[in-house]
Amino acid sequence: MTSRRAGVVGTGLIGGSIGLALRQRGWHVTGHDADPTRAERALALGALDAVGVDAAAEITFVATPVGAVGRVVVETLGTTRGLVTDVGSVKASIVEAVDDARFVGGHPMAGSEQEGVEGADAELFEGAVWVLTPTAATDDAAYAAVRTVVSSFGAEVVALSPAQHDALVAVVSHVPHLAAATLMRLADERAEEHAALLRLAAGGFRDMTRVAAGHPGIWPDICGENRVAIVDMLDRLVEALADMRDVVAKDDRAGLLAVLERARAARVNLPARFSRPSDLSELRVPVPDRPGVLADVTTLATDLSVNILDLEIAHSSEGQRGVLIMVVEAALAERFHGGLLARGYRPSLRRLE
Amino acid sequence: MTSRRAGVVGTGLIGGSIGLALRQRGWHVTGHDADPTRAERALALGALDAVGVDAAAEITFVATPVGAVGRVVVETLGTTRGLVTDVGSVKASIVEAVDDARFVGGHPMAGSEQEGVEGADAELFEGAVWVLTPTAATDDAAYAAVRTVVSSFGAEVVALSPAQHDALVAVVSHVPHLAAATLMRLADERAEEHAALLRLAAGGFRDMTRVAAGHPGIWPDICGENRVAIVDMLDRLVEALADMRDVVAKDDRAGLLAVLERARAARVNLPARFSRPSDLSELRVPVPDRPGVLADVTTLATDLSVNILDLEIAHSSEGQRGVLIMVVEAALAERFHGGLLARGYRPSLRRLE
Repeated sequence: MTSRRAGVVGTGLIGGSIGLALRQRGWHVTGHDADPTRAERALALGALDAVGVDAAAEITFVATPVGAVGRVVVETLGTTRGLVTDVGSVKASIVEAVDDARFVGGHPMAGSEQEGVEGADAELFEGAVWVLTPTAATDDAAYAAVRTVVSSFGAEVVALSPAQHDALVAVVSHVPHLAAATLMRLADERAEEHAALLRLAAGGFRDMTRVAAGHPGIWPDICGENRVAIVDMLDRLVEALADMRDVVAKDDRAGLLAVLERARAARVNLPARFSRPSDLSELRVPVPDRPGVLADVTTLATDLSVNILDLEIAHSSEGQRGVLIMVVEAALAERFHGGLLARGYRPSLRRLE
Repeated sequence: MTSRRAGVVGTGLIGGSIGLALRQRGWHVTGHDADPTRAERALALGALDAVGVDAAAEITFVATPVGAVGRVVVETLGTTRGLVTDVGSVKASIVEAVDDARFVGGHPMAGSEQEGVEGADAELFEGAVWVLTPTAATDDAAYAAVRTVVSSFGAEVVALSPAQHDALVAVVSHVPHLAAATLMRLADERAEEHAALLRLAAGGFRDMTRVAAGHPGIWPDICGENRVAIVDMLDRLVEALADMRDVVAKDDRAGLLAVLERARAARVNLPARFSRPSDLSELRVPVPDRPGVLADVTTLATDLSVNILDLEIAHSSEGQRGVLIMVVEAALAERFHGGLLARGYRPSLRRLE
C-alpha cells in the first residue's frame, strides 16, 4: 500500500509543523519554500520527504506569509491536481482572490514566539482551534476532505465565513498583539528615564508582552489585509481605555469593580482547549443539490456553539445528491437538530453507543 | 538556642508565603488577620507557629490590602518593639502616613492569580524583585536588617524612592493589568454577538489576559492610592494606541515595523529573573553621620543598575559613625565605585576571591 501524498508550500514554523504532523500519520510530504535553504532545513528536520512540487498531492497546504498566500494558492492550483488549503491569519481577501472549488481557506489558531522550521512541532495543533472558511463556492467534498485531515492533527475545526473570521481574530489576536507591543514600547521608553523599570517587570507583565517578542515581519501584511476590522477594534480599545482612565481619575470604585468583575468572569470562563467528549450523537442530513449547503450547515453549527467532531458526505448512487453525516457531542445534538430543522433541512438524529 | 521571632499581619497569599519562607528558615512566626478563620487556616497550613501578636518580634510584615496598610503599620509599631515592613503595591501614600524610623516600606514583585493562603508558597519570592523604599527618615540599621531578611527569601532587593516606585509600577504592573481587563471585557462584549469568538482565543490572548482572572477587590485601593501615576500612564497608552490606529489605517508599513521592532528588542532584552553572580566585589563606604545616607547609596545603586547582593553596617567603636559594607557583581563594581566618588563618598573596593 502506497502512502497518501501531500504538499506544503512555505516551510517555516507552521508549514514545518504541518509536514511533521502529516508524516507522523503516514503521509508522503513534498514541499518547497521561496528560500531553498529553508526547504532543505525542513527536509533535514524530518518535516518533508522531498523538496519540490508534487502534482499528484491529494492536498497541499500553503503556509507562506499572508501577503503572498493568494498568489501562491492560485499557482498551486495550477501545478497540482488535488485540494489546496492555506493557513493565513486573514481570510476574506484571500478567499475573494481565489475562485476555485478545490480551495478551502483555513487558519490554525496556534503558533509560538519561535520562528522558522526549527520551532516546528508535530503536536502544535493538538487541542488548538483550526478555522476553515467554506463559502458557497467551496466544493462540499473538498471541504469534508480538508476537514478530515486537519482534524487528524488533533485540532478542533470551527467553520466561519471569511468576513466573520477576520472580525473575530482582530478582537482576540491582532489587536491584542498590537496592544502588547505598545505596552512593551511604552515601558521601554520609560526605562530610558529610569533604568530600574524593567527589573520590576514581573510575571504579569511578562505574560502580557510575550507575543511582542515574535517576528514583526508578518504584521504589515496582516494589518494591511485586515485593516478595517483592526482599526474598528483599536477604536473600541482606545475608547474603553479612555473610559477606564476616567473611572480611575474620578476614583469611581464601583465602576472600576464592575469592569474588573466582568473581565474576571469572562477570563475564568474562557473555553478550555478542546478535548473530545465521550457521549456522541450522529446527525444525518440529506443534502439538497445546491451550492453552499456545507458552508451553511457548518457555520450554523459554529453559530450554535456546536462542535462537529466528524463529518462525512455519503453520495447516493443517483449522482450529486447525498447525505451529510456529522458526529457531535450528544448534549448539544438536539440544539443543532432544531437549528437544522428551522433552516429547512430534514436531519435525523441518533445516539452513538 | 531559641528561634528568632517574626510577625505577619494579614495571612493571605503574600502574608502566608512570607510565613512559610520565614518558618523554613527557622523563624518563629506569629500572625493574625482581620478574618480570624483566615489566620487559623494559615496556622493549619504551616505558615504560622501561633495566632496573635508577638510584641517581641524582631520584624513584622504587614500584608493587608493596600488601603489598610498605613493604619495597620501604625498599629503594629504600637504593639511591637521590633521593625515593621509592608508589602503594599503602592508606596508613597503609605510611607508618608508612617513617620517612624522602625518602618521600611516594601513591595515584593511576585504574586499569582490564586487568592488566599491556600496559594501560599515558600518559594514565591525566589528570584523575584523585592522593592524597598528607604527615605531620609529610615533608620540605616533597620533598612539593613529588613534587607537581609527579604534577601534570605531568594529575592533581589531593589531600592527606590516611594514616588519612583509608584511611577514605575504604574507602567509595568497597574496599567498592564487594567489593559488586560479591558481587552478581556471587549472580547466578552463581542462574544455576545458571535458565540465562536472566545473559542478562537489562543495562547497569546490567554497569556495577555491571564492577570484579569485575579481577584478584583484589591484594585480600587491600588487605583485610589496611585491615581496620578496610573492616569498619566493610561493617557500615554491611549495616545500610543491612537497612533497605532492611524499607522494601521494609513497602511504605514514602515511605521508599523519600526514600532514592533522596538517592542521586540525590548521584550527579548527583558532582564531575566535574578540569579546570583559568581564574581563578586566588596565596597566599603565610611558612613558620615547624617540621615538618609543609606537611602542615598542604595537608590544610587538602583539608578546605576547595580544590584547590591549583601549589605551590612559595621559600627565603629566611637558611636554613630560606621562603615557600610556592600557586595556587588564584580563587573559593575567600578561603575558603582565611580558613582559613589562623584557623590562625595570615600569608598574602597576589593575583589572577593
